[in-house]
Amino acid sequence: MGLVVQKYGGTSVKDAERVMNVARRVTDTYQKGNNVVVVVSAQGDTTDELIEKAMEINPSPSKREMDMLLSTGEQISISLLAMAIEKLGFPVVSMTGWQAGFRTDSTYGAARIHEINADRIENELDKRRIVIVAGFQGINKYDDIVTLGRGGSDTSAVALAAVLGADVCEIYTDVDGVFTADPRFVKTAYKLDEISYDEMLELASLGANVLHNRSVELAKKYNVKLAVKSSLNNNEGTYVKEVDQVEKMIVRGVTRDNDCARIALCGVEDTPGKAFQIFSLLSKNGIGVDLIIQSIGNGTQKDISFTTTEGDLDKALEVMDGNRSVLKVQDIKWSKDVSKVSIVGAGMVNNVGVAAKMFEALYNAHININMIATSEIKISVLVDQKDAERAVVAIHDKFLV
Amino acid sequence: MGLVVQKYGGTSVKDAERVMNVARRVTDTYQKGNNVVVVVSAQGDTTDELIEKAMEINPSPSKREMDMLLSTGEQISISLLAMAIEKLGFPVVSMTGWQAGFRTDSTYGAARIHEINADRIENELDKRRIVIVAGFQGINKYDDIVTLGRGGSDTSAVALAAVLGADVCEIYTDVDGVFTADPRFVKTAYKLDEISYDEMLELASLGANVLHNRSVELAKKYNVKLAVKSSLNNNEGTYVKEVDQVEKMIVRGVTRDNDCARIALCGVEDTPGKAFQIFSLLSKNGIGVDLIIQSIGNGTQKDISFTTTEGDLDKALEVMDGNRSVLKVQDIKWSKDVSKVSIVGAGMVNNVGVAAKMFEALYNAHININMIATSEIKISVLVDQKDAERAVVAIHDKFLV
Repeated sequence: MGLVVQKYGGTSVKDAERVMNVARRVTDTYQKGNNVVVVVSAQGDTTDELIEKAMEINPSPSKREMDMLLSTGEQISISLLAMAIEKLGFPVVSMTGWQAGFRTDSTYGAARIHEINADRIENELDKRRIVIVAGFQGINKYDDIVTLGRGGSDTSAVALAAVLGADVCEIYTDVDGVFTADPRFVKTAYKLDEISYDEMLELASLGANVLHNRSVELAKKYNVKLAVKSSLNNNEGTYVKEVDQVEKMIVRGVTRDNDCARIALCGVEDTPGKAFQIFSLLSKNGIGVDLIIQSIGNGTQKDISFTTTEGDLDKALEVMDGNRSVLKVQDIKWSKDVSKVSIVGAGMVNNVGVAAKMFEALYNAHININMIATSEIKISVLVDQKDAERAVVAIHDKFLV
Repeated sequence: MGLVVQKYGGTSVKDAERVMNVARRVTDTYQKGNNVVVVVSAQGDTTDELIEKAMEINPSPSKREMDMLLSTGEQISISLLAMAIEKLGFPVVSMTGWQAGFRTDSTYGAARIHEINADRIENELDKRRIVIVAGFQGINKYDDIVTLGRGGSDTSAVALAAVLGADVCEIYTDVDGVFTADPRFVKTAYKLDEISYDEMLELASLGANVLHNRSVELAKKYNVKLAVKSSLNNNEGTYVKEVDQVEKMIVRGVTRDNDCARIALCGVEDTPGKAFQIFSLLSKNGIGVDLIIQSIGNGTQKDISFTTTEGDLDKALEVMDGNRSVLKVQDIKWSKDVSKVSIVGAGMVNNVGVAAKMFEALYNAHININMIATSEIKISVLVDQKDAERAVVAIHDKFLV
């Protein structure tokens, strides 16, 4: 029939039983006449266990050695999955990142894929073997093993699908697909049958936790058709592809992201170039910034607030505090107890009423809005973390039920 | 000063504390001005844990996938040791087998090293970096990861020392060196300061459990000076090298090997070529044979006995039984409850009294001898396993105290 790339995450291969389950899915697809390439992540807690081993010895190891260590996690998974497929009696071969031809840049811990030399994979597929590839890894120009960082295995799968010209790249996870909101606390949430790359991009970056941004960007760039499915049942998942814009839903989904922290710089001197000064300092220190709000200055002073991840908070505070006199900031306030709640939908930009309707939903639920930011296809608000789930439910029910 | 290759086994790096201990040893050697290349095995029980993971999924996986799995054990060790050395503030780089240039034949699970392209290692040494290499592994002509089988890490270390022209190859273990007998049950046993390759070869193959045969053979071939040392103290170890034969001790050590089984073929037809027939059958089936005894035939019948490892016993019996009529054997007897006790020493061949003295020691201890075999530098006897330790003590005290 065709060529299918499948990707299974860590929970899908967390123990022997789950590995056998994945093996059956893979061989089912193979038996239908497809060539199958499978990308796997490290088993369940393996990565955490390896990190723990490292921390016991050296709390700040070089990224190179960390990559050397962590890449073993996927190598264990691929061999175990290959053994499971052998047990079912099918021809199979496993490959590490370098064996599969993944060449990357030299950024240990967060490498980007430069190219994939898929000769060996194509060779094995020609022999009708199932090919199992270690996700999340490749080698750089020094022949050092590097990992691709967050969302790496999804990215490996999509990149392979692009290079091999696969008919579909199936991303298996423990949920049924992409939902209009998190079904764990939004009872009325439902699964989407399809969604556009751009919408998925916003949902991914907003904490929907299904697909990583990077892999969606790559899929969009190379027009790889994605299917997000559950590895635990045979339900139809969600297709991510170019979606016809006619008659589409305005709002696709509502998301919440608890991993954010707010920093407010109060009483900043109101002179031109102040924002540039602040954010280039943060950028130089490798601190990612998400929402930014600047109050209208009174000619003497203004307030500038921004959000970052919780992991970057301490460093951001340190940088701001260390440059207090240069920046001429009177006071620095911060909070971790905030969440970002967002609605996403490609049609949103042309619908002036969307933002108003969202704020109305929050007002009716008595939820205070700390910050607001809008883009072409999303509107995000920062709320107190304790209000976040209620905010998602209120907005979801206003737009999507 | 020079170039030192050090090899640390699994128990030497079994936990964080031991890894730090090894890191300190390595950096001590480095600080004395030496270039240092370190070969490490997988941590303590890692290999067993990985095998267990595999068995849960597939009790008879392909050797290729098993090698893919097991090779992660050493990759974990090298990165952890590198991190420990980083913590001590020294420049270090870890390398997998393929990164270190180990090319092997294609025998998965028991590959032999074809060549080592040491360019990268030499490059790193030129930069005064400590180089940590994963033992026990390499890649074959398909670029598949293979393991070297038993004694693989020792072999990796010796091969590297040969290729790099190292001044010494230090093999670290949990004993102080090579002893005249097993100090766990021979109270009078003592450590040897030096021993020849040939003597070490006999001791290694006779169950002294310090160095694997293969690595000693390789060291002999390329004249690599070996030092067997403890990773737990700073005692001088035992040097294995070409030893001047003048005034040497006649007997170097006494060993015991419990991993043997005896098969006796009784009432074999006494015709020429019978032994050839039997042992070529065993060889074709991959069964290793150690001691061989043939009774003097009476023209009609003779008895042929041989020993093999316990692991090969069942297969050997199967082969013998399946060819009973061809071989014309009346009865097949076997026992696992036997041990091989041997004395080793290069001077032995010229000392007619050695065998007699050994048998006297056993006679005095009331120990029955089942089989006897002699070579240029050893005499082995097969005794009941229950008598083996007493036999070693008796012989040791006769010759070496």
